[in-house]
Amino acid sequence: MKIIIIGATGTIGKHVVNALQENNEIVKVGSKSGDYQVDIANPESIKNLFEQVGLFDALVSTTGDGHFGPLKEMTDANFRVGLDSKLMGQINVVLIGQHYINPKGSFTLTSGSLGEDPIVLGASLSTINGALDAFVKAAAIELENGVRINAVGPDVVEESPAYFPFFPGHIPVSMHRVAQAYVKSVLGAQTGQAYKVL
Amino acid sequence: MKIIIIGATGTIGKHVVNALQENNEIVKVGSKSGDYQVDIANPESIKNLFEQVGLFDALVSTTGDGHFGPLKEMTDANFRVGLDSKLMGQINVVLIGQHYINPKGSFTLTSGSLGEDPIVLGASLSTINGALDAFVKAAAIELENGVRINAVGPDVVEESPAYFPFFPGHIPVSMHRVAQAYVKSVLGAQTGQAYKVL
Repeated sequence: MKIIIIGATGTIGKHVVNALQENNEIVKVGSKSGDYQVDIANPESIKNLFEQVGLFDALVSTTGDGHFGPLKEMTDANFRVGLDSKLMGQINVVLIGQHYINPKGSFTLTSGSLGEDPIVLGASLSTINGALDAFVKAAAIELENGVRINAVGPDVVEESPAYFPFFPGHIPVSMHRVAQAYVKSVLGAQTGQAYKVL
Repeated sequence: MKIIIIGATGTIGKHVVNALQENNEIVKVGSKSGDYQVDIANPESIKNLFEQVGLFDALVSTTGDGHFGPLKEMTDANFRVGLDSKLMGQINVVLIGQHYINPKGSFTLTSGSLGEDPIVLGASLSTINGALDAFVKAAAIELENGVRINAVGPDVVEESPAYFPFFPGHIPVSMHRVAQAYVKSVLGAQTGQAYKVL
Protein backbone atom coordinates (compact mmCIF):
# COMPACT_ATOMS: atom_id res chain seq x y z
CA MET A 1 0.00 0.00 0.00
CA LYS A 2 1.01 3.58 -0.63
CA ILE A 3 0.42 5.38 2.67
CA ILE A 4 0.70 9.15 3.11
CA ILE A 5 1.57 10.16 6.67
CA ILE A 6 1.11 13.87 7.41
CA GLY A 7 3.06 14.76 10.53
CA ALA A 8 5.49 11.90 9.86
CA THR A 9 8.32 13.29 12.00
CA GLY A 10 6.12 14.36 14.93
CA THR A 11 5.86 12.78 18.37
CA ILE A 12 3.15 10.38 17.27
CA GLY A 13 3.79 10.34 13.53
CA LYS A 14 7.26 8.83 13.73
CA HIS A 15 5.88 5.84 15.64
CA VAL A 16 3.12 5.40 13.07
CA VAL A 17 5.77 5.40 10.34
CA ASN A 18 7.72 2.70 12.21
CA ALA A 19 4.62 0.59 12.71
CA LEU A 20 3.53 0.73 9.06
CA GLN A 21 6.76 0.95 7.05
CA GLU A 22 7.30 -2.76 6.63
CA ASN A 23 5.56 -3.98 3.44
CA ASN A 24 4.21 -0.52 2.61
CA GLU A 25 5.40 2.50 0.66
CA ILE A 26 5.36 5.40 3.12
CA VAL A 27 5.13 8.98 1.85
CA LYS A 28 6.33 11.20 4.68
CA VAL A 29 4.81 14.67 4.83
CA GLY A 30 5.58 17.48 7.25
CA SER A 31 5.22 21.22 7.56
CA LYS A 32 8.98 21.60 7.05
CA SER A 33 10.40 18.07 6.91
CA GLY A 34 9.65 14.83 5.07
CA ASP A 35 9.41 13.85 1.40
CA TYR A 36 6.81 16.54 0.78
CA GLN A 37 5.73 19.67 2.68
CA VAL A 38 2.22 20.93 3.32
CA ASP A 39 0.60 23.77 5.23
CA ILE A 40 -2.61 22.05 6.32
CA ALA A 41 -4.21 25.38 7.23
CA ASN A 42 -4.10 26.23 3.51
CA PRO A 43 -6.44 24.26 1.18
CA GLU A 44 -4.34 25.22 -1.86
CA SER A 45 -1.26 23.71 -0.22
CA ILE A 46 -3.21 20.49 0.44
CA LYS A 47 -4.33 20.31 -3.18
CA ASN A 48 -0.74 20.81 -4.32
CA LEU A 49 0.35 17.95 -2.09
CA PHE A 50 -2.09 15.51 -3.67
CA GLU A 51 -1.19 16.72 -7.16
CA GLN A 52 2.45 15.91 -6.41
CA VAL A 53 1.93 12.59 -4.60
CA GLY A 54 -0.76 11.24 -6.91
CA LEU A 55 -3.08 8.36 -6.15
CA PHE A 56 -2.70 6.66 -2.77
CA ASP A 57 -4.26 3.90 -0.65
CA ALA A 58 -4.24 5.30 2.87
CA LEU A 59 -3.67 8.63 4.54
CA VAL A 60 -2.81 9.13 8.18
CA SER A 61 -2.84 12.62 9.68
CA THR A 62 -1.10 13.12 13.03
CA THR A 63 -0.89 16.86 12.82
CA GLY A 64 -2.68 20.07 13.75
CA ASP A 65 -2.29 22.94 16.18
CA GLY A 66 -4.80 24.26 18.69
CA HIS A 67 -5.01 26.88 21.42
CA PHE A 68 -4.47 25.84 25.04
CA GLY A 69 -5.52 28.39 27.65
CA PRO A 70 -8.13 29.55 30.17
CA LEU A 71 -11.74 29.82 29.01
CA LYS A 72 -12.07 33.09 30.91
CA GLU A 73 -9.59 34.80 28.58
CA MET A 74 -10.37 32.87 25.42
CA THR A 75 -11.21 34.84 22.27
CA ASP A 76 -12.56 34.10 18.83
CA ALA A 77 -9.00 34.50 17.47
CA ASN A 78 -7.64 31.93 19.96
CA PHE A 79 -10.32 29.47 18.91
CA ARG A 80 -9.64 30.02 15.20
CA VAL A 81 -6.07 28.69 15.54
CA GLY A 82 -7.38 25.18 16.11
CA LEU A 83 -10.33 25.53 13.74
CA ASP A 84 -7.99 26.47 10.89
CA SER A 85 -5.29 23.92 11.69
CA LYS A 86 -6.30 20.76 13.59
CA LEU A 87 -9.98 20.87 12.54
CA MET A 88 -10.29 22.28 9.01
CA GLY A 89 -6.73 21.22 8.16
CA GLN A 90 -7.64 17.58 8.68
CA ILE A 91 -11.16 17.93 7.24
CA ASN A 92 -9.78 19.60 4.11
CA VAL A 93 -7.32 16.72 3.74
CA VAL A 94 -10.40 14.48 3.43
CA LEU A 95 -12.56 16.83 1.33
CA ILE A 96 -9.72 17.25 -1.18
CA GLY A 97 -8.11 13.84 -0.72
CA GLN A 98 -11.34 11.95 -1.50
CA HIS A 99 -10.72 12.86 -5.15
CA TYR A 100 -7.23 11.26 -5.13
CA ILE A 101 -7.69 8.15 -2.98
CA ASN A 102 -7.87 4.66 -4.49
CA PRO A 103 -10.99 2.48 -4.03
CA LYS A 104 -11.03 0.74 -0.63
CA GLY A 105 -8.57 3.32 0.68
CA SER A 106 -8.73 4.88 4.13
CA PHE A 107 -8.30 8.15 5.98
CA THR A 108 -7.19 8.18 9.63
CA LEU A 109 -7.34 11.51 11.45
CA THR A 110 -6.17 12.47 14.93
CA SER A 111 -8.59 13.81 17.52
CA GLY A 112 -7.90 13.20 21.25
CA SER A 113 -9.37 12.18 24.56
CA LEU A 114 -10.35 15.73 25.56
CA GLY A 115 -13.58 15.71 23.57
CA GLU A 116 -15.09 13.31 26.10
CA ASP A 117 -12.78 13.88 29.07
CA PRO A 118 -12.05 17.62 29.36
CA ILE A 119 -9.29 19.32 31.37
CA VAL A 120 -8.87 22.90 32.54
CA LEU A 121 -7.41 25.08 29.72
CA GLY A 122 -8.53 22.60 27.08
CA ALA A 123 -11.94 23.91 25.95
CA SER A 124 -10.80 24.73 22.44
CA LEU A 125 -9.10 21.36 21.93
CA SER A 126 -12.09 19.52 23.40
CA THR A 127 -14.32 21.26 20.88
CA ILE A 128 -12.06 20.34 17.97
CA ASN A 129 -11.74 16.71 19.10
CA GLY A 130 -15.52 16.38 19.44
CA ALA A 131 -15.91 17.89 15.99
CA LEU A 132 -13.45 15.45 14.42
CA ASP A 133 -15.05 12.41 16.07
CA ALA A 134 -18.45 13.49 14.70
CA PHE A 135 -16.98 14.28 11.28
CA VAL A 136 -15.55 10.79 10.73
CA LYS A 137 -18.85 9.23 11.81
CA ALA A 138 -20.74 11.35 9.26
CA ALA A 139 -18.19 11.23 6.44
CA ALA A 140 -18.08 7.41 6.68
CA ILE A 141 -21.64 7.11 5.38
CA GLU A 142 -20.94 9.28 2.31
CA LEU A 143 -17.44 8.28 1.15
CA GLU A 144 -17.67 6.24 -2.05
CA ASN A 145 -15.88 3.21 -3.55
CA GLY A 146 -15.39 1.51 -0.21
CA VAL A 147 -13.22 4.30 1.17
CA ARG A 148 -13.11 4.26 4.96
CA ILE A 149 -12.43 6.93 7.61
CA ASN A 150 -11.64 6.76 11.33
CA ALA A 151 -10.13 8.97 14.02
CA VAL A 152 -7.62 8.07 16.71
CA GLY A 153 -8.05 9.95 19.97
CA PRO A 154 -5.12 9.46 22.33
CA ASP A 155 -4.93 10.61 25.92
CA VAL A 156 -1.68 12.42 26.82
CA VAL A 157 1.20 10.36 25.40
CA GLU A 158 4.29 9.21 27.30
CA GLU A 159 6.70 11.11 25.04
CA SER A 160 5.04 14.48 25.83
CA PRO A 161 6.06 14.95 29.49
CA ALA A 162 5.67 18.73 29.25
CA TYR A 163 1.89 18.20 29.16
CA PHE A 164 1.71 15.84 32.16
CA PRO A 165 1.04 18.63 34.74
CA PHE A 166 -2.08 19.65 32.80
CA PHE A 167 -3.49 16.11 32.85
CA PRO A 168 -3.79 15.30 36.56
CA GLY A 169 -4.65 11.67 37.16
CA HIS A 170 -4.23 10.74 33.51
CA ILE A 171 -1.95 7.78 32.91
CA PRO A 172 0.20 8.63 29.88
CA VAL A 173 -0.32 6.13 27.10
CA SER A 174 2.58 4.28 25.51
CA MET A 175 3.61 5.19 21.99
CA HIS A 176 3.18 1.54 21.05
CA ARG A 177 -0.51 1.55 22.03
CA VAL A 178 -1.09 4.81 20.18
CA ALA A 179 0.66 3.64 17.02
CA GLN A 180 -1.30 0.39 17.03
CA ALA A 181 -4.60 2.33 16.97
CA TYR A 182 -3.51 3.85 13.65
CA VAL A 183 -2.50 0.39 12.41
CA LYS A 184 -5.95 -0.90 13.40
CA SER A 185 -7.58 1.87 11.38
CA VAL A 186 -5.36 1.48 8.28
CA LEU A 187 -5.14 -2.31 8.10
CA GLY A 188 -8.53 -3.10 9.65
CA ALA A 189 -11.91 -2.83 7.99
CA GLN A 190 -13.95 -0.61 10.30
CA THR A 191 -15.17 2.84 9.34
CA GLY A 192 -16.75 5.83 11.10
CA GLN A 193 -15.01 4.95 14.37
CA ALA A 194 -13.28 7.16 16.92
CA TYR A 195 -10.67 4.95 18.58
CA LYS A 196 -9.82 6.30 22.03
CA VAL A 197 -6.38 5.34 23.34
CA LEU A 198 -6.60 5.63 27.13
CA MET B 1 -34.93 35.74 35.98
CA LYS B 2 -33.78 37.83 33.07
CA ILE B 3 -33.44 35.41 30.15
CA ILE B 4 -31.92 36.34 26.79
CA ILE B 5 -33.23 34.17 23.93
CA ILE B 6 -31.25 34.48 20.70
CA GLY B 7 -33.36 33.20 17.83
CA ALA B 8 -36.54 34.06 19.73
CA THR B 9 -38.80 34.16 16.68
CA GLY B 10 -37.39 31.03 15.03
CA THR B 11 -39.05 27.60 14.71
CA ILE B 12 -37.68 26.42 18.05
CA GLY B 13 -37.08 29.77 19.74
CA LYS B 14 -40.70 30.87 19.79
CA HIS B 15 -41.65 27.73 21.69
CA VAL B 16 -38.82 28.31 24.18
CA VAL B 17 -40.14 31.85 24.70
CA ASN B 18 -43.63 30.48 25.38
CA ALA B 19 -42.32 27.89 27.80
CA LEU B 20 -40.25 30.36 29.81
CA GLN B 21 -42.13 33.66 29.64
CA GLU B 22 -44.29 33.14 32.70
CA ASN B 23 -42.48 34.47 35.79
CA ASN B 24 -39.40 35.55 33.81
CA GLU B 25 -38.26 38.64 31.94
CA ILE B 26 -37.56 37.50 28.38
CA VAL B 27 -35.21 39.52 26.17
CA LYS B 28 -35.97 38.48 22.60
CA VAL B 29 -33.05 38.66 20.18
CA GLY B 30 -33.03 37.93 16.46
CA SER B 31 -30.99 38.64 13.38
CA LYS B 32 -33.69 41.02 12.15
CA SER B 33 -36.56 40.78 14.65
CA GLY B 34 -36.97 40.92 18.43
CA ASP B 35 -36.13 43.49 21.11
CA TYR B 36 -32.48 43.50 20.02
CA GLN B 37 -30.66 42.39 16.89
CA VAL B 38 -27.39 40.51 16.62
CA ASP B 39 -25.25 39.02 13.88
CA ILE B 40 -23.84 36.01 15.73
CA ALA B 41 -21.18 35.48 13.06
CA ASN B 42 -19.68 38.82 14.18
CA PRO B 43 -18.04 38.95 17.65
CA GLU B 44 -18.33 42.76 17.71
CA SER B 45 -22.08 42.50 17.18
CA ILE B 46 -22.31 40.01 20.08
CA LYS B 47 -20.36 42.34 22.35
CA ASN B 48 -22.67 45.21 21.40
CA LEU B 49 -25.68 43.07 22.30
CA PHE B 50 -24.41 42.40 25.82
CA GLU B 51 -23.46 46.06 26.27
CA GLN B 52 -27.05 47.01 25.44
CA VAL B 53 -28.83 44.26 27.40
CA GLY B 54 -26.59 44.40 30.47
CA LEU B 55 -26.39 41.73 33.16
CA PHE B 56 -28.59 38.67 32.76
CA ASP B 57 -29.34 35.34 34.44
CA ALA B 58 -29.76 32.91 31.57
CA LEU B 59 -29.08 32.86 27.87
CA VAL B 60 -30.65 30.47 25.38
CA SER B 61 -29.36 30.29 21.82
CA THR B 62 -31.56 28.59 19.22
CA THR B 63 -29.81 30.00 16.21
CA GLY B 64 -27.07 29.33 13.70
CA ASP B 65 -26.71 28.42 10.04
CA GLY B 66 -24.80 25.52 8.51
CA HIS B 67 -24.18 23.99 5.11
CA PHE B 68 -26.24 21.00 4.00
CA GLY B 69 -24.94 19.14 0.95
CA PRO B 70 -23.00 16.15 -0.41
CA LEU B 71 -19.58 15.37 1.06
CA LYS B 72 -18.28 14.66 -2.43
CA GLU B 73 -18.73 18.30 -3.45
CA MET B 74 -18.09 19.92 -0.09
CA THR B 75 -15.45 22.65 0.13
CA ASP B 76 -13.66 24.55 2.84
CA ALA B 77 -15.92 27.54 2.08
CA ASN B 78 -19.08 25.41 2.54
CA PHE B 79 -17.81 24.19 5.89
CA ARG B 80 -16.93 27.71 7.05
CA VAL B 81 -20.58 28.79 6.86
CA GLY B 82 -21.45 26.63 9.84
CA LEU B 83 -18.15 27.20 11.63
CA ASP B 84 -18.69 30.95 11.54
CA SER B 85 -22.41 30.87 12.39
CA LYS B 86 -23.73 27.87 14.33
CA LEU B 87 -20.38 26.92 15.90
CA MET B 88 -18.33 30.07 16.59
CA GLY B 89 -21.47 32.21 16.78
CA GLN B 90 -22.70 30.23 19.75
CA ILE B 91 -19.23 29.77 21.27
CA ASN B 92 -18.55 33.50 21.03
CA VAL B 93 -21.86 34.14 22.80
CA VAL B 94 -20.38 32.18 25.73
CA LEU B 95 -16.81 33.54 25.52
CA ILE B 96 -18.13 37.11 25.54
CA GLY B 97 -21.27 36.51 27.59
CA GLN B 98 -19.34 34.96 30.50
CA HIS B 99 -18.27 38.51 31.35
CA TYR B 100 -21.90 39.75 31.57
CA ILE B 101 -23.72 36.81 33.19
CA ASN B 102 -24.84 36.89 36.83
CA PRO B 103 -23.54 34.30 39.33
CA LYS B 104 -25.43 31.00 39.09
CA GLY B 105 -26.54 31.94 35.59
CA SER B 106 -26.70 29.52 32.66
CA PHE B 107 -26.01 29.23 28.96
CA THR B 108 -28.02 26.82 26.79
CA LEU B 109 -26.81 26.27 23.24
CA THR B 110 -28.37 24.33 20.38
CA SER B 111 -26.54 21.41 18.77
CA GLY B 112 -28.56 18.56 17.22
CA SER B 113 -28.89 14.82 16.87
CA LEU B 114 -26.65 14.59 13.79
CA GLY B 115 -23.42 14.59 15.79
CA GLU B 116 -24.17 11.06 16.95
CA ASP B 117 -26.69 9.97 14.32
CA PRO B 118 -25.52 11.22 10.90
CA ILE B 119 -27.52 11.48 7.68
CA VAL B 120 -26.45 11.82 4.06
CA LEU B 121 -25.68 15.50 3.22
CA GLY B 122 -25.20 16.34 6.89
CA ALA B 123 -21.43 15.96 7.44
CA SER B 124 -20.85 19.64 8.15
CA LEU B 125 -23.75 19.88 10.61
CA SER B 126 -22.69 16.63 12.31
CA THR B 127 -19.23 18.11 12.83
CA ILE B 128 -20.63 21.31 14.31
CA ASN B 129 -23.03 19.46 16.60
CA GLY B 130 -20.25 17.20 17.88
CA ALA B 131 -18.10 20.27 18.45
CA LEU B 132 -20.83 22.03 20.46
CA ASP B 133 -21.55 18.98 22.62
CA ALA B 134 -17.83 18.73 23.47
CA PHE B 135 -17.57 22.48 24.06
CA VAL B 136 -20.29 22.58 26.71
CA LYS B 137 -18.73 19.59 28.47
CA ALA B 138 -15.34 21.36 28.59
CA ALA B 139 -16.60 24.88 29.30
CA ALA B 140 -18.66 23.59 32.24
CA ILE B 141 -15.51 22.78 34.23
CA GLU B 142 -14.06 26.29 33.78
CA LEU B 143 -17.03 28.65 34.06
CA GLU B 144 -16.86 30.52 37.39
CA ASN B 145 -19.36 31.70 40.03
CA GLY B 146 -21.63 28.70 39.60
CA VAL B 147 -22.43 29.53 35.99
CA ARG B 148 -23.73 26.47 34.11
CA ILE B 149 -23.76 25.48 30.44
CA ASN B 150 -25.64 22.79 28.49
CA ALA B 151 -26.60 22.04 24.90
CA VAL B 152 -29.92 20.83 23.53
CA GLY B 153 -29.65 18.53 20.53
CA PRO B 154 -33.01 17.92 18.85
CA ASP B 155 -33.71 15.44 16.10
CA VAL B 156 -35.71 16.87 13.17
CA VAL B 157 -38.63 18.83 14.66
CA GLU B 158 -42.29 18.48 13.70
CA GLU B 159 -42.59 22.08 12.52
CA SER B 160 -39.83 21.65 9.90
CA PRO B 161 -41.56 19.31 7.41
CA ALA B 162 -39.29 20.46 4.56
CA TYR B 163 -36.47 18.51 6.22
CA PHE B 164 -38.42 15.25 6.71
CA PRO B 165 -37.29 13.67 3.38
CA PHE B 166 -33.66 14.01 4.46
CA PHE B 167 -34.29 12.19 7.76
CA PRO B 168 -35.60 8.77 6.68
CA GLY B 169 -36.88 6.76 9.62
CA HIS B 170 -36.55 9.65 12.04
CA ILE B 171 -39.69 10.38 14.02
CA PRO B 172 -40.07 14.18 14.15
CA VAL B 173 -40.02 15.42 17.74
CA SER B 174 -42.81 17.59 19.11
CA MET B 175 -42.10 21.25 19.79
CA HIS B 176 -43.26 20.68 23.35
CA ARG B 177 -40.58 18.06 24.01
CA VAL B 178 -37.91 20.26 22.44
CA ALA B 179 -38.93 23.35 24.42
CA GLN B 180 -38.94 21.37 27.66
CA ALA B 181 -35.30 20.36 27.13
CA TYR B 182 -34.41 24.07 27.20
CA VAL B 183 -36.56 24.54 30.32
CA LYS B 184 -34.70 21.63 31.94
CA SER B 185 -31.38 23.29 31.20
CA VAL B 186 -32.42 26.80 32.34
CA LEU B 187 -34.42 25.92 35.45
CA GLY B 188 -32.55 22.72 36.39
CA ALA B 189 -29.14 22.48 38.02
CA GLN B 190 -27.11 20.25 35.71
CA THR B 191 -24.10 21.47 33.75
CA GLY B 192 -21.90 20.17 30.94
CA GLN B 193 -24.75 18.11 29.51
CA ALA B 194 -25.85 17.56 25.91
CA TYR B 195 -29.58 16.85 26.08
CA LYS B 196 -30.66 14.87 23.04
CA VAL B 197 -34.35 15.22 22.10
CA LEU B 198 -35.18 12.13 20.06
